[in-house]
Amino acid sequence: MKLKPLGDRIVVKVLSQDEKTKGGILIPETAKEKPQEGEVLAVGSGKVLENGQKLPPEVKTGDKILFSKYGGTEVKVDGEEMLILSERDVLAILEK
Amino acid sequence: MKLKPLGDRIVVKVLSQDEKTKGGILIPETAKEKPQEGEVLAVGSGKVLENGQKLPPEVKTGDKILFSKYGGTEVKVDGEEMLILSERDVLAILEK
Amino acid sequence: MKLKPLGDRIVVKVLSQDEKTKGGILIPETAKEKPQEGEVLAVGSGKVLENGQKLPPEVKTGDKILFSKYGGTEVKVDGEEMLILSERDVLAILEK
Amino acid sequence: MKLKPLGDRIVVKVLSQDEKTKGGILIPETAKEKPQEGEVLAVGSGKVLENGQKLPPEVKTGDKILFSKYGGTEVKVDGEEMLILSERDVLAILEK
Amino acid sequence: MKLKPLGDRIVVKVLSQDEKTKGGILIPETAKEKPQEGEVLAVGSGKVLENGQKLPPEVKTGDKILFSKYGGTEVKVDGEEMLILSERDVLAILEK
Amino acid sequence: MKLKPLGDRIVVKVLSQDEKTKGGILIPETAKEKPQEGEVLAVGSGKVLENGQKLPPEVKTGDKILFSKYGGTEVKVDGEEMLILSERDVLAILEK
Amino acid sequence: MKLKPLGDRIVVKVLSQDEKTKGGILIPETAKEKPQEGEVLAVGSGKVLENGQKLPPEVKTGDKILFSKYGGTEVKVDGEEMLILSERDVLAILEK
Repeated sequence: MKLKPLGDRIVVKVLSQDEKTKGGILIPETAKEKPQEGEVLAVGSGKVLENGQKLPPEVKTGDKILFSKYGGTEVKVDGEEMLILSERDVLAILEK
Repeated sequence: MKLKPLGDRIVVKVLSQDEKTKGGILIPETAKEKPQEGEVLAVGSGKVLENGQKLPPEVKTGDKILFSKYGGTEVKVDGEEMLILSERDVLAILEK
Repeated sequence: MKLKPLGDRIVVKVLSQDEKTKGGILIPETAKEKPQEGEVLAVGSGKVLENGQKLPPEVKTGDKILFSKYGGTEVKVDGEEMLILSERDVLAILEK
Repeated sequence: MKLKPLGDRIVVKVLSQDEKTKGGILIPETAKEKPQEGEVLAVGSGKVLENGQKLPPEVKTGDKILFSKYGGTEVKVDGEEMLILSERDVLAILEK
Repeated sequence: MKLKPLGDRIVVKVLSQDEKTKGGILIPETAKEKPQEGEVLAVGSGKVLENGQKLPPEVKTGDKILFSKYGGTEVKVDGEEMLILSERDVLAILEK
Repeated sequence: MKLKPLGDRIVVKVLSQDEKTKGGILIPETAKEKPQEGEVLAVGSGKVLENGQKLPPEVKTGDKILFSKYGGTEVKVDGEEMLILSERDVLAILEK
Repeated sequence: MKLKPLGDRIVVKVLSQDEKTKGGILIPETAKEKPQEGEVLAVGSGKVLENGQKLPPEVKTGDKILFSKYGGTEVKVDGEEMLILSERDVLAILEK
């Protein structure tokens, strides 16, 4: 079974300590807003602008991302924990 | 008797434990915002953009969906419980 | 005497227990936001979009509707109780 | 002396019990938001949309109207009490 | 020395009891929002709409106006007290 | 070293009692919102409208201005105190 | 490893006391909103306007900037502390 997110939403797998990028991203204990690392599992068709134009998402399936924890929704599909969140909650793509 | 939702609204039947997708979606006890599974019974004509263009809904009758409980309105039509909600409260379509 | 509602407003007669659609709509006691059944008596010329285009109302005189109670204004015209409300407070049209 | 209201504002004379439409409009004691009857004395040049287009007012001088009391400003011109309010506070025009 | 107001701002001289229009405007003691009489001393180049169009002000230098006290800024130029306020705080122009 | 402000921001030198325009602007003790006199040191490239058009600033380097204290940010560049503020906080240009 | 910020976001290295511009920017102890000095490490593809147009960022990699601390997110990449923030939080570019 698969989740097809709507609009500008994406489905993200939160990365465990082992799966995190080596070298890597570290969130300071003092950070006001702690971001999380994740991998994009599915992307929606994109945000619709007021002129009817569809804005394709900047992230794609497989991207490692840094995202704000605020606003996402937790679900468990086929035993695997996932998050559905809006692309505007994605801060950056992690590139090697 | 039928409900014809207005604008970007849709009519949804909340799925009982038996009707839920097997394998399936599980909402963790700790989830901040608990989503629900449902089946789309009817869709409105779509959201109207500021340029007058009508945006057709992304969901269609028969779709299994995951939606946020926030904002919907409960009604009972011919003895069957339903929810009228806005399409923006739909998080994802469930596909097999 | 007649009421001609302005903009996207409509005039609605709240349906009594006897006038309600048979078979019918039932609002659960536990509903967060209790909707009401009504009949449309008059519709305005429609909402004006930011490009100056007038958006014709989706409901028409005689329609049986389900509407949210929030935001309407009660008046009594020639002894008959009515509500003036915005079309965005209409959830669905009831069809047989 | 005359008041020429700006933009989408209108000048309204609140109707006394004697001047109200016969047959008439009655505001229930229980009404959440009590509207008032009035007669339009002057209208502004209309609301300006974001594309620069001027939207002519739907009401005209002499119209009997039902308006929401919220937001108006009371003034007394040449001994006569008036209200300056925005056209969006007008609920309906009263027609015979 | 002169004040050249920016955007949709105007400079207004508050009229004293003697300078007020005879016959005149009277603000009831019970008024929720008490307006004031003033004379326009200078107008800005106008509000800029989202399409870049400049909207010329509806008031001009010398106009007697009724304005809402909310939001203005008091200054004293060459010993004379003035107010800088936005044109949207002007309720009406007083005409004879 | 120079500050190049971004978007609709400007850099302003707050005028001391000696540098203020003679004749001049006086802010009453009772003023709800006390404005300040300043001299424009640098202007940004202007506000970007929703259609992508850049709106050139109304003020230019060297202008004496009256501005609202709300929202500005104090910095000291090469020992000189300055303010970075948005052009919408400028009330008027002072002309002789 | 590199961070590719999304939309109008940028990645910034906060400058230590030693790296700060000589001569230089000094934030008064009394400043309401204390800005910070930083160096731009990466910029996103820019803000998307409602007409679908992409607005290129005004700052570029290597720029020394003054930014508001409000709203940024702290991360540590390969042992180096960074901030992800929106370009609208950048007050000015520092030029020599």
